[in-house]
Amino acid sequence: MGRTSDARERILGAAQALIELRGYSALGVAEICKAAGVPKGSFYYFFESKEALALAVLDERWAEQESAWTRVLHGDGEPLDRLRRLCAETEAAQRAGQEGCGTVSGCLFGNLSLEMSNHVEVVRSRLQEIFDAQVAMVGSVIDEARRRGQVTAADTAEAARAVVAQLEGQVLFAKLYNNTGRLGPLWANCLALLGAGQTQGAPAGV
Amino acid sequence: MGRTSDARERILGAAQALIELRGYSALGVAEICKAAGVPKGSFYYFFESKEALALAVLDERWAEQESAWTRVLHGDGEPLDRLRRLCAETEAAQRAGQEGCGTVSGCLFGNLSLEMSNHVEVVRSRLQEIFDAQVAMVGSVIDEARRRGQVTAADTAEAARAVVAQLEGQVLFAKLYNNTGRLGPLWANCLALLGAGQTQGAPAGV
Repeated sequence: MGRTSDARERILGAAQALIELRGYSALGVAEICKAAGVPKGSFYYFFESKEALALAVLDERWAEQESAWTRVLHGDGEPLDRLRRLCAETEAAQRAGQEGCGTVSGCLFGNLSLEMSNHVEVVRSRLQEIFDAQVAMVGSVIDEARRRGQVTAADTAEAARAVVAQLEGQVLFAKLYNNTGRLGPLWANCLALLGAGQTQGAPAGV
Repeated sequence: MGRTSDARERILGAAQALIELRGYSALGVAEICKAAGVPKGSFYYFFESKEALALAVLDERWAEQESAWTRVLHGDGEPLDRLRRLCAETEAAQRAGQEGCGTVSGCLFGNLSLEMSNHVEVVRSRLQEIFDAQVAMVGSVIDEARRRGQVTAADTAEAARAVVAQLEGQVLFAKLYNNTGRLGPLWANCLALLGAGQTQGAPAGV
């Protein structure tokens, strides 16, 4: 019992690390099993296909990230401070990843959206649910800030989508240039997108 | 002579279409040759590897896009009008792609940045050059607008990176949700990022 549940975790851990380094399609089940140190038979005991593994990797990563986002976004402090912390934690997480494996691996959800979403429908649906949840979480904080008169964006969902899109776009560049410094302007850009005014922030590059 | 040069173009065309649909790693040389209707020997006459083909596909796509961006961004009209046209043409191009193949294929450069950039260095370098060029083109238009007092963003390069990141992030969502309507707010978001003021635009969602 202990061994089998350990094997599943090891497969998931190896798959997540390999997918972050090289994407999904470049990997084979044999390579994942070798990295996990489990026989190939174990793989199919836990996962009916490589696609099922991809979904399990997404679910596990999202469970971790949702808990981190909840802690930051629904924690103490002013709403805009909490959003600022989300930007700072995103940069810190990418920096930690780079220190661990030598290269910025980016956002697993963004990576697989671009690699897989238009040809694997179950992955597309799961990723839509994840980004819908992200937008809803960011949106609820924007709503709070709006009620306090701290932002002028009128359509909360649209503003939240703009913030998450900015985050994904800048994380893409951090990955491409292998430079987490690319995430430095993220917070100022988010303030500009929210119409947070001169006291809270300024347009990009100011 | 005519036949061989035609074969190269057919391989490039097939590869571009297949990479847009399913990514790079999911494809084999045999599949590309079959789609192009050329024998496998022809492939290696023109391209020393699949990686060399990926670079040729990027170069060809960038040559087309650079010419389109130059026409729009360095054409007639007010600088902000030209940037607005870039947003509108991006949406139109994604819509045309969706009509052609049933699914929004996104930005080839963004797709391959996330799929390949941290494990294929030559592709990473080429994609960096392409995005550097995009940022420089957008930056020169922002500079013009800044000299006319139409935007307040002080650091042109940073503002241009924010605009291109917003574009890539929103195109990612257009692809994930297979919905080009996601690109509708792109222009308002760009104005907000540039600090273009209430007369030119408004924060996201207004």
